[in-house]
Amino acid sequence: MVVALLLAGCVTAPAPHAEAPAAPAAPAAPATVDVPATMRWLYGSGESAASSIQAYHALRDFVLAAARDRPTESVVLAPEARLGAPRFIPCGDRPLAVVLDVDETALQNLGFEYDDAVHPGRAFDQERWNRWEEGGGDAVRAMPGAVTALRAIRAAGVTVIFNSNRLARFAAANEAVLNRAGLGPARHGETLWLQGDAPGGSGKDERRWAISRDYCVVAMAGDQLGDFSDLFNVRTLSVPARRDAASSGPFARLWGNGWFMLSNPVYGPSLRGGLDDVFPSDKRWSDPQGDH
Amino acid sequence: MVVALLLAGCVTAPAPHAEAPAAPAAPAAPATVDVPATMRWLYGSGESAASSIQAYHALRDFVLAAARDRPTESVVLAPEARLGAPRFIPCGDRPLAVVLDVDETALQNLGFEYDDAVHPGRAFDQERWNRWEEGGGDAVRAMPGAVTALRAIRAAGVTVIFNSNRLARFAAANEAVLNRAGLGPARHGETLWLQGDAPGGSGKDERRWAISRDYCVVAMAGDQLGDFSDLFNVRTLSVPARRDAASSGPFARLWGNGWFMLSNPVYGPSLRGGLDDVFPSDKRWSDPQGDH
Repeated sequence: MVVALLLAGCVTAPAPHAEAPAAPAAPAAPATVDVPATMRWLYGSGESAASSIQAYHALRDFVLAAARDRPTESVVLAPEARLGAPRFIPCGDRPLAVVLDVDETALQNLGFEYDDAVHPGRAFDQERWNRWEEGGGDAVRAMPGAVTALRAIRAAGVTVIFNSNRLARFAAANEAVLNRAGLGPARHGETLWLQGDAPGGSGKDERRWAISRDYCVVAMAGDQLGDFSDLFNVRTLSVPARRDAASSGPFARLWGNGWFMLSNPVYGPSLRGGLDDVFPSDKRWSDPQGDH
Repeated sequence: MVVALLLAGCVTAPAPHAEAPAAPAAPAAPATVDVPATMRWLYGSGESAASSIQAYHALRDFVLAAARDRPTESVVLAPEARLGAPRFIPCGDRPLAVVLDVDETALQNLGFEYDDAVHPGRAFDQERWNRWEEGGGDAVRAMPGAVTALRAIRAAGVTVIFNSNRLARFAAANEAVLNRAGLGPARHGETLWLQGDAPGGSGKDERRWAISRDYCVVAMAGDQLGDFSDLFNVRTLSVPARRDAASSGPFARLWGNGWFMLSNPVYGPSLRGGLDDVFPSDKRWSDPQGDH
């Protein structure tokens, strides 16, 4: 979600090749600032591009199959669903749609993230993000694989709808950035839902339910669990419990099978947890030659 | 690749929810050390688990389809292939196989990475990694989705072969860690290829060609481009050119379609690049309210 943007400001050493030792790098003036590892991966690497193309390839194939053979259920969890008890809104005879998040799902906010990279350690600022939404223009890039996948999906008669936490206040600018990136048509009130369009603030469930009154949503794509259900964003859910909720039980089977995840290690609620949250106590190791 | 391990030691603020401002965190004694964002994402988040399940779901479906309908070509690039000119080893009538990397592809090295997390800023040390290979035991976890996917693949009669830069010197320990994680059978010399088993050092092409003499490799999985071809690891390839080689041209269509990428922002050759490598010059933005 846009409003959960966080830059993890890092001092990093350049990634070594097998034979070259890593030289420690120090933070410096913008001209020589180190790019955080998370951004090197997401924006610079062929690995992340491959991962994105792969996700969009899977999304496209899945949606085209649904267009040929209508499902009875959508992939939107009904209001009465719970983490242990999924229940999906039925498809009915409504026209088919796919719902996608925007930021670091359909497009990459290169301009905003560049500005963060040259100001290491700075906290997220909603007003700065608002200036980016309003005036960032085309300093974005479509996620690899997105343009061709969305083109194929639309050609199959499936409507593409964006569900974003960008603000309704900047609807015109937000339509334009999607359309100019080749991802459109994005029309606010039709194929672009923004924060403020329905109750729930930055939670997206109400918007998904509103979309589902008019469409059978056969697939969704996002970079955060909240792009699929607000159930994953309950504040009392611990980091390990949130991971378990997504990776085991009834939701695990959805990944790549109606729910499509784009990898984003740069910001978002995925970047939480202390040692005890991230590393199970029975999976720890200490170098026997320790601090020698 | 194992030997390109790098920890990006970071000072991170806890990822904020929409309404909560980020509190800056300081590095401290191990009991309160901050986990780097990259590790929070890869090891702690439901988002990365979802991404892994999705990749393994796609791998499984693809391999099962190949088992039903044999391809004429494998997905291993032939020796004469070049980045602009792919050429694949023909399938012939050899038995089908899938080839996977091990580290952060089939399993997560939680123990080794925990040790890195509590020693922030430390450079990679091959000897320390060797001690981990030899004695790390079971402080690992299978990648989400891997065990069930490999089981289905084997049940379809397709051989699962691991191609890892772990060392042949520790073959017994490396077999054991895979087998005990539920990913086996891994037998060195049969279904586990290690560094040293063929020429090329940490390059994997020679091992892929050796495997291809006995098998038709219908799919491969890895977390780095070198898990698919050494062509992506040519030292003179710039960061943007390497990204382009994977994301455009003839290789782009392979992702999710024979070549399966697992997202790993914690270490590897994906973590390279300065500002000019990562952020295209025409996609930059500066906050108009700058440093106010």
